[in-house]
Parts: sequence; C-alpha cells; structure tokens
Amino acid sequence: MTAPREPRTRKPAARPRGAKRDRILDVATEHFGRDGFEDTKWADVAAAVGIGSTALYHYFESKQHCLYVIMDCAIAGFQARFDKITSGNPDHAAALVDVMYDAFDLSELEILRNRVLVAEQGLLAVRASSPREEAARVAARSRARDLEFAYGTFLARAMEQGAFPERDPKLLTHALLGLLNSVWHWYRPGRSFPLDEVADFYVELARTMIGLPPGVGLRKAA
Amino acid sequence: MTAPREPRTRKPAARPRGAKRDRILDVATEHFGRDGFEDTKWADVAAAVGIGSTALYHYFESKQHCLYVIMDCAIAGFQARFDKITSGNPDHAAALVDVMYDAFDLSELEILRNRVLVAEQGLLAVRASSPREEAARVAARSRARDLEFAYGTFLARAMEQGAFPERDPKLLTHALLGLLNSVWHWYRPGRSFPLDEVADFYVELARTMIGLPPGVGLRKAA
Repeated sequence: MTAPREPRTRKPAARPRGAKRDRILDVATEHFGRDGFEDTKWADVAAAVGIGSTALYHYFESKQHCLYVIMDCAIAGFQARFDKITSGNPDHAAALVDVMYDAFDLSELEILRNRVLVAEQGLLAVRASSPREEAARVAARSRARDLEFAYGTFLARAMEQGAFPERDPKLLTHALLGLLNSVWHWYRPGRSFPLDEVADFYVELARTMIGLPPGVGLRKAA
Repeated sequence: MTAPREPRTRKPAARPRGAKRDRILDVATEHFGRDGFEDTKWADVAAAVGIGSTALYHYFESKQHCLYVIMDCAIAGFQARFDKITSGNPDHAAALVDVMYDAFDLSELEILRNRVLVAEQGLLAVRASSPREEAARVAARSRARDLEFAYGTFLARAMEQGAFPERDPKLLTHALLGLLNSVWHWYRPGRSFPLDEVADFYVELARTMIGLPPGVGLRKAA
C-alpha cells in the first residue's frame, strides 16, 4: 500500500533480453535456491553478476520482480516439455509416465529453480506493489494456471481412453502435481537419496495412486 | 549479517504465555494466512490485537519470531493428534487411515495455520538473525523432524505388520506428507470443493498409493 507507484503516463521500460539477463536470472536462482529468497540480498546478486545497481534496474526493478520472472521461466520450461512429450504420443498412459519421469530429468540449476518455485509459489497469489512487478506476477500466475489446465484436460482425456479409473480431473491434477512437486521441498543434491532413485520411487507411487496398470508406459531405456 | 545482535550478557527475556499471547498468535495466523507472511505488516497485527509495539515486543521480537512460534504450535498440534490416534490403536493400518482423515478435521483458523506452514516451511531451513528468533526457529525445526521421524517409524511398523507393501519408510513419509500437505497450497474454504470431499478424495488416493487394501481402516461414522 505504501510503495510508490510509477506515474501512469510513464512509458514502460524496455524489457531487455539476452545473455546478461540470463546470467542475472541464473545467479539469482542459485542464491534464492541455496540461501532462500528472503535471506538473499539483491545487492549480493548484483555483485556476483558484476553489474551496478543502475544497470541491474534496467533488467529487473527489484528482487521480487526477478523472482516472478524466474518462476515464469520455470513454468514455461515445464510447459514446453509437457507439450513436446504429450503432443508426440497418442497413448496418454505412456505419455503420462514419460511426463512424470521427465519432471526429474533436471540440471542442478533446474533443481534449484524448482526449489524456489515450490518455496515461493504463495507469492504468486498476492498483488505486487509496482506495475512492473505486478505484470511479471500476473504473467507467471496465468502461466501456472494454463499448465494446470493443460494437465487437467490431459488427465481427463487419458481417463476417457480408459487409461486409469475416472476421478475428478481438477482434484487429480492438484494431487498429482502436489505429490511430484513436494520432492523439491526436501530434496538436496548429494544428500540422502540419488535423484534417479527418488524418480523411480515417486513415479511408481504416482502410477499406483492414479491406477495406471503395471507395464503401461514403461520407462524407456536411456 | 547486518542485523544487530543482542549483547551476549543480556538476560534472555521471559517468555510470557497466556491469553494475550494466544490472541496475538491467532491474529497473526489470520493475517499471514490470508494476506501472506511477506505482505503482512507487523504493525497491523499489533493494531488488530490492540497492543502497543513495546508490549508486543514482550511477547515476540519480530514478525519472523511470531511466525516460527506459529509453525511450532501447528506442528505440536499435529504431533499431539498423531500420538493420540496411533497410541490408542494397535492396528496400524486402521490408525493410519484415522490419522489421514484427522488431518482434514480442522477449524478455519487451523486451515489458515496449515497454509502458513506449507507456504513458509522453507524459512525453517535458514538461520535467523537474532538469538531469540533462532531459538524459536530451531525449536520448530526439531519438532518438524521429530514428527517426520514418528511418522516414518509408524509406517515402518505398519509395513512390518504387513499392512501394505514394503518400501523405504523415509521416502514414503516424504511422499505421503507431501501429498496430504499439498492440499493447503491450493485449498480455500468456500471455494470450489467442500473440505469433506477433498478429504475423501485425498485419503482414497493416499490409501491406493501406499497399497492399503480396500476395507481396511474404513472411516468411522461421525
């Protein structure tokens, strides 16, 4: 409420893209994922990238603005992978198993990005204080909704094909994404369980949970 | 790093209990749950309780301190309910179903508290800046670990009894709690689904997921 608003007549700043912006996103993802969003100082991200605060502002108005863009990129990444796997496979049961395994096929940076996403997803529900931040928040939130919708319609079609027992597709989407995404709350690379093992464990539980018969959509040999 | 530290020689403040403290916790839970932790102003909580900032400091050093105590209370509540249900029932399969249904038997304030807990659980992993905050964080974090451990040993005993197929108890604990707790990320009272329906849906999925045979530990009539 107290944050200053830009004058409405001001021309929106250009949204620069390119290598520098990607570098800021990667460094911020590392900091947010490793140290937590709240405990990361925006100035430390700038210093690690080697950029001054005026130049940094050109790309992101604030730490929060950068967070929304990271979340948007993460969701866009999931969406692209989901579309690629499901559009190329008319067998929904097999495609679903592929989608689930694919959710664990990640680089260390992508794991950190997922951790940021699940840790801070609540912020997507709360209005931001500046127009530029708010635009980034709304973009990320609608992308998240689009992906949930795509998941829901995909599950509905799979049930229509008889791939597994009929259930409410919206609740099933919540449950399946809730189960799979919960991994990123606790998983840390190099500690306790190798990611391959976690993937096998969770995908098997998810298959059993929704009632995908054994042998359907077996994991492809790498 | 920049936060001021209390001098080491200072006597720790007494930890007051009682009605006023409970009232602050309830009001803060409502604010954090409804508006989000980051977007709640600590001064607004004080105003809603009708307490000055000096008196408020007597109970909680900061918004963050209060958050840790709310999380600790939430976990303590789960723990007490878990212990009560499981200690009175030698049939682990039936007790587990009771525990799962019990996780949805909540007041509106408890639902908000769960939302705060799942939204901010990441903060439990990050060292706090003052000794009083840090003590509250460590208390909440160890309670969370104790509860996970209790859950894990309970599941291990249930598998030992042959209640459902053998799996790694630690990963199974993560998965089961991940599935059940994920509800509080999206559930809002009065919107989309009644909580009873959500409870039936999730408990049935969880039973199927771990392989509890149908008919075991059926929900008791209210």
